[in-house]
Amino acid sequence: MRMIDLIEKKKRGMALTKAEIDYFIDGYTAGQIPDYQAAALLMAICFTGMRHEETAWMTDAMVRSGDQVDLSSIPGVKVDKHSTGGIGDKTTLILAPLVAACGVPVAKMSGRGLGYTGGTVDKLESIPGFRTDLDRDAFLDTVKRIGVCVVGQSGHLALADKKLYALRDVTGTVDSIPLIAASIMSKKIAAGADGIVLDVKCGSGAFMKTPEDAARLAREMVAIGQACGRKMAAVITNMDLPLGYSIGNGLEVAEAIDLLKGAGPADLREVCLVLAAQMLSLAGKGTLQACRDMAAAALDSGAALEKFVQMCRAQGGDPAVVEHPQTLYAGAVSDTLQAPADGWICRMDAQACGKASMLLGAGRETKESAIDPAAGIVLACKTGDRVQKGQVLARLYTNQPDQMADAKQVLLDAYTLSDQKPQLPPLVYDTILGE
Amino acid sequence: MRMIDLIEKKKRGMALTKAEIDYFIDGYTAGQIPDYQAAALLMAICFTGMRHEETAWMTDAMVRSGDQVDLSSIPGVKVDKHSTGGIGDKTTLILAPLVAACGVPVAKMSGRGLGYTGGTVDKLESIPGFRTDLDRDAFLDTVKRIGVCVVGQSGHLALADKKLYALRDVTGTVDSIPLIAASIMSKKIAAGADGIVLDVKCGSGAFMKTPEDAARLAREMVAIGQACGRKMAAVITNMDLPLGYSIGNGLEVAEAIDLLKGAGPADLREVCLVLAAQMLSLAGKGTLQACRDMAAAALDSGAALEKFVQMCRAQGGDPAVVEHPQTLYAGAVSDTLQAPADGWICRMDAQACGKASMLLGAGRETKESAIDPAAGIVLACKTGDRVQKGQVLARLYTNQPDQMADAKQVLLDAYTLSDQKPQLPPLVYDTILGE
Repeated sequence: MRMIDLIEKKKRGMALTKAEIDYFIDGYTAGQIPDYQAAALLMAICFTGMRHEETAWMTDAMVRSGDQVDLSSIPGVKVDKHSTGGIGDKTTLILAPLVAACGVPVAKMSGRGLGYTGGTVDKLESIPGFRTDLDRDAFLDTVKRIGVCVVGQSGHLALADKKLYALRDVTGTVDSIPLIAASIMSKKIAAGADGIVLDVKCGSGAFMKTPEDAARLAREMVAIGQACGRKMAAVITNMDLPLGYSIGNGLEVAEAIDLLKGAGPADLREVCLVLAAQMLSLAGKGTLQACRDMAAAALDSGAALEKFVQMCRAQGGDPAVVEHPQTLYAGAVSDTLQAPADGWICRMDAQACGKASMLLGAGRETKESAIDPAAGIVLACKTGDRVQKGQVLARLYTNQPDQMADAKQVLLDAYTLSDQKPQLPPLVYDTILGE
Repeated sequence: MRMIDLIEKKKRGMALTKAEIDYFIDGYTAGQIPDYQAAALLMAICFTGMRHEETAWMTDAMVRSGDQVDLSSIPGVKVDKHSTGGIGDKTTLILAPLVAACGVPVAKMSGRGLGYTGGTVDKLESIPGFRTDLDRDAFLDTVKRIGVCVVGQSGHLALADKKLYALRDVTGTVDSIPLIAASIMSKKIAAGADGIVLDVKCGSGAFMKTPEDAARLAREMVAIGQACGRKMAAVITNMDLPLGYSIGNGLEVAEAIDLLKGAGPADLREVCLVLAAQMLSLAGKGTLQACRDMAAAALDSGAALEKFVQMCRAQGGDPAVVEHPQTLYAGAVSDTLQAPADGWICRMDAQACGKASMLLGAGRETKESAIDPAAGIVLACKTGDRVQKGQVLARLYTNQPDQMADAKQVLLDAYTLSDQKPQLPPLVYDTILGE
């Protein structure tokens, strides 16, 4: 088999065989296929795509390229959840204890963030003492004991994906739906859960800009998961504006705690209930409606909050944050942004909100950058709100006061005011279930 | 400027600026842009193409990446000719002395062959003593003295093309018309002629399979040459079957000598006269018809042959080959291929003829392979001929007799017999002139 023939085939839009895809992934991981040939194949895939079975084969080869987590020692159906990423997306902080509180074990590996926002691991680490670097045994033991544990993703999962992603990043081959799907699913499948619920974000603040593209990505990932023997569901949710009101790390943990107390913003609660219902349903806990009711009850009864406290304790975190969440961002300098005029907020650029948050210290520009857990933004108004000139739009927090002015300007530019009441986009566009 | 931005732009089908193309070619030649990013850009170009001005800028940057030959010390309009390559194409051997005999200086650099056939340099070197490695001064002096010199192409012309071609060859990015055009034209323009006539081959034995693709390539190259200030013409000629009857190195020289004597095959003479007319016309020697008549007279009077003899002497070759061309392949073992049945030859696969010739030792499988100057094929019949069972179709020559049986089989398979007289394709499809 020769790599040049694979490139020529894909260039002409032909499907690769399982043997050819194995040859590529195995050879590339082993360093036998040079970067330049891999780059040429990836670019050809960007143009001619891959069939569902090719994407599933590629995912499978990527899964086999690294460690695979064995969750079989944990009784029950283990369910994982993955979000394609958005601004203010703190759903994992809520869903992990919530689903565990409903009796479904959650053994979750999460990533750090690169770019505008921290990842779940960064957010959890804003809780004093919280450890996400548990070893495999401690991870499994914690799930067996309390039903939930969230740790950092092992660098040895899906090694091929790690190497390929680094190449895609510098060769303009990131935005291919089959390549994105294979990359995400290889890590999820290697992480060992029996069921996976995908939250595919869609809108100005997400990688997928249209509901159609988001649905294509969702269908591709659901098909891959099923081909790999996993129970699958995907929900397409709105990311034209931030989810909830808090953007940052400690600030998002504080908002998640609010929600776990049965309070918190309606949009965040709704997305959490929709995703929790899918997770519980995949685990066989009943109809979607019954699962949703169960999740809502766990939020309102304090059971989910209690599970969060257990998770904090088990992972070394100080559970006092539950009583005093403001300690997560106390000490930071804060300032407010005021509305420059009267009007309806007809649009918020979620990306720009993320950028403002990064300027304040909540995100990482490079892998080496440190995150400020207290930095970020708490919005006071969002799309659809009517504001008056001088009214507070948001409060900004930072430990780098010299960044405040820039961040305020970027955030101000994120708002578009109008004299007409805007139509709000749906919060949940669609649900795609496995067959 | 960042390479990733150039890749993303080209991927979306946007045009690159001159500065961006310079950045790519200069950076790649200098080793500052890695192969994997270059490969990604080349593959994107294969899919989205380049505008005429982008291709001209790329060619210009490639010309500047290496040596440029200065022919200004030679009086008159210097005219070069380039063929995109075909089986049995020995036109340069004829055109160089022919055009020189008509008073237009020909200072020509030619390549070696890789693949099925030798290049012009390989063919000339089948003449005992003939040297194609003259240094720059000897090359220019010879042209000034006798009006013609054909040498091997300097490895320092268009360095960027050399590096890019090696990458294209292993990344499936060869078959892009703008990339092919820029590659060919960068070497031609660096070689310094004032006028360039392109022979774009079209058909089963050529890289361009259809007259439409050949015309696209021709137009692209003519536009590039003009943008670089050269007088340009392109002729699209048939390569569905070999040109002339001889395939090989010494065998093709022998056929060229035949033609220079005013004899030789009609198809070869016609293509030579068409190309010579264009070359003489670019040099300002009169109307196309007058130029064609001038070339025909130079063939028939022996003036072209005399110029060939002068060229041989000047470059160290033994001019006795003109009297005894059979010495060029004497000593080789020969065998004949017979027609397996009665019928009309309705098709000849020119590629397969080339492959048979390579098996006999006339081509190079790798850069390191040696060429056997005596090896090759002399066809007795071609497409359009009526043959009877047992009639000789061709004579094969080799110094590796163990290859004879394979070569005969490959050559036999190249012929398709039919009981209907076939329609012959035109010999010259089209001429594309500069404005």
